[in-house]
Amino acid sequence: MDLMDLAKRIASGERRALARGITLVESSRSDHRAQAAQVLAALPKDRQALRIALSGTPGVGKSTFIESFGMMLTAQGLRVGVLAIDPSSARSGGSILGDKTRMDRLSRDPSAFIRPSPSQTHLGGVARRTREAVALCEGAGFDVVLIETVGVGQSETVAAQMADLFLLLLAPAGGDELQGVKRGIMEMADIILVNKADGDLEPLATRTCADYAGALRLMRKRSQDPDGFPKAMMVSALHEQGLQDAWGEMQALDGWRRNNGFFTSTRALQAQYWFEEDVRTALLAQLDEKGIREEMRRLGANVACGDVDPAVAAQKMLAVLRDMNRG
Amino acid sequence: MDLMDLAKRIASGERRALARGITLVESSRSDHRAQAAQVLAALPKDRQALRIALSGTPGVGKSTFIESFGMMLTAQGLRVGVLAIDPSSARSGGSILGDKTRMDRLSRDPSAFIRPSPSQTHLGGVARRTREAVALCEGAGFDVVLIETVGVGQSETVAAQMADLFLLLLAPAGGDELQGVKRGIMEMADIILVNKADGDLEPLATRTCADYAGALRLMRKRSQDPDGFPKAMMVSALHEQGLQDAWGEMQALDGWRRNNGFFTSTRALQAQYWFEEDVRTALLAQLDEKGIREEMRRLGANVACGDVDPAVAAQKMLAVLRDMNRG
Repeated sequence: MDLMDLAKRIASGERRALARGITLVESSRSDHRAQAAQVLAALPKDRQALRIALSGTPGVGKSTFIESFGMMLTAQGLRVGVLAIDPSSARSGGSILGDKTRMDRLSRDPSAFIRPSPSQTHLGGVARRTREAVALCEGAGFDVVLIETVGVGQSETVAAQMADLFLLLLAPAGGDELQGVKRGIMEMADIILVNKADGDLEPLATRTCADYAGALRLMRKRSQDPDGFPKAMMVSALHEQGLQDAWGEMQALDGWRRNNGFFTSTRALQAQYWFEEDVRTALLAQLDEKGIREEMRRLGANVACGDVDPAVAAQKMLAVLRDMNRG
Repeated sequence: MDLMDLAKRIASGERRALARGITLVESSRSDHRAQAAQVLAALPKDRQALRIALSGTPGVGKSTFIESFGMMLTAQGLRVGVLAIDPSSARSGGSILGDKTRMDRLSRDPSAFIRPSPSQTHLGGVARRTREAVALCEGAGFDVVLIETVGVGQSETVAAQMADLFLLLLAPAGGDELQGVKRGIMEMADIILVNKADGDLEPLATRTCADYAGALRLMRKRSQDPDGFPKAMMVSALHEQGLQDAWGEMQALDGWRRNNGFFTSTRALQAQYWFEEDVRTALLAQLDEKGIREEMRRLGANVACGDVDPAVAAQKMLAVLRDMNRG
């Protein structure tokens, strides 16, 4: 494969080349890793998509929102990429974005590109691959990249490390359930969208939105926010209501951050984070290599039955790794 | 230093040798790490202390509890070691166990040995060192080792990985505050002790204890628990009340687990965990070495200003590490 040709075709917006590039970054083979790095390095550096993380627990209507919101953006002439971070997908058989039929119209839209979460059991692996897929979409000239995540656990933290904006999608709910949203996730949100603000649920959505707006006001002000942010808004993804308003707020927030230097400084910190994370991941990946893994298992069994102290076994294991690296 | 002699003196119960051994395991120098591993390997393997983790937020009376509980145990002829896991101690200047005067009587008791948390900014470093200090205390023939921790964040998870029993010390509090205890920490507890069950606070302590007992009943039954565990009890560390009952329950639980194989199986899993964790920590520690750290910083700066893609920089960094290992 001619990697420079692949990079050129990705940069010219060829969908098949983009898909192939993503397959390359998703591979765990070390020769593919090196090739992926070459492709990434050859992409144009002057293109920036607006990267939007979208978090929400199952059932809040993430797929419907992505479909409606994505269609609205493509109708405005924007090109939209949709990616996912879902560390559970390997076990559950692909829980988010795996089934494109849930986004029937968007998946057939030539201005949109949807890619399910890579199948990996480790969040770290999923995260790095998604982050590189974001870079490929950006190099391919997409205007907006949506990064969907599942709203449980650590995948939010990781999505926030690769996004310019963080949206939290919530369903209308009583006051008690408000506490179900982890404080850490609330603190990451730039805009909370209370979905399903339609029909019988509209009054409850109005109250839920007011509750979250109140909760957001209690939180410490962040330097990267203008007045009025983070904020809570109502949308109905199903009835396509409130989406243009939400997009307007996203653009306003993004514009303010660009004008005040926060866009650039945040991206710089994120790039540094991923560099260090890539190095750490690669160092630990040695332990999964054939030969090494068996030795870890053998020594681990000796430790478990009490024959060897953990620290002593660890010293032995490190000697094995040193010999491998020398050989 | 004759390491075999040091191990022998630790095994014979010499306090100065034990202190010296702990200083060795606390060192981050790699030659000291290797020496510490030798000392650990030379200790008698047939000694088992009952390892008890004690968690509780500041102000619940952990020091008073350790002093009263420890004195009760030494009065029964038992030898008691007290260690701490406090990742904040490096920054705060030693918040727990740093001030032995808070445990005035116990620190002068010849049957007790108190050691403050090692000064380390990384929880991983603190944890490994404390785990090895536990092994040294055990080799020195202590009957009970108490591992104090601060009750905030991840230090509990780490303490649970080195303990046979997990105690959660709480203060009497209204129903609303009950939710302040993280669910994850509640789930680790074998026995919840509501402290300060004395004077004006006694009625509130009774209600608090009932509240927690109710909350514990709602949680999923764990296979390593006999009927009636985990349980909530009241104590007054200040008035030395309820301590013998609490100790009786700890012994009952420990006895049941030993008879049913859970003591051994838990320790085996813990040893394996620490072996793998030691290997991972040592691999990542390469990045802190002189020369490597400067190169990381230099490449990180290039990545931050957008000159190099994170993945490309990571590949360069790994090449540098490979060359270092070969050289």
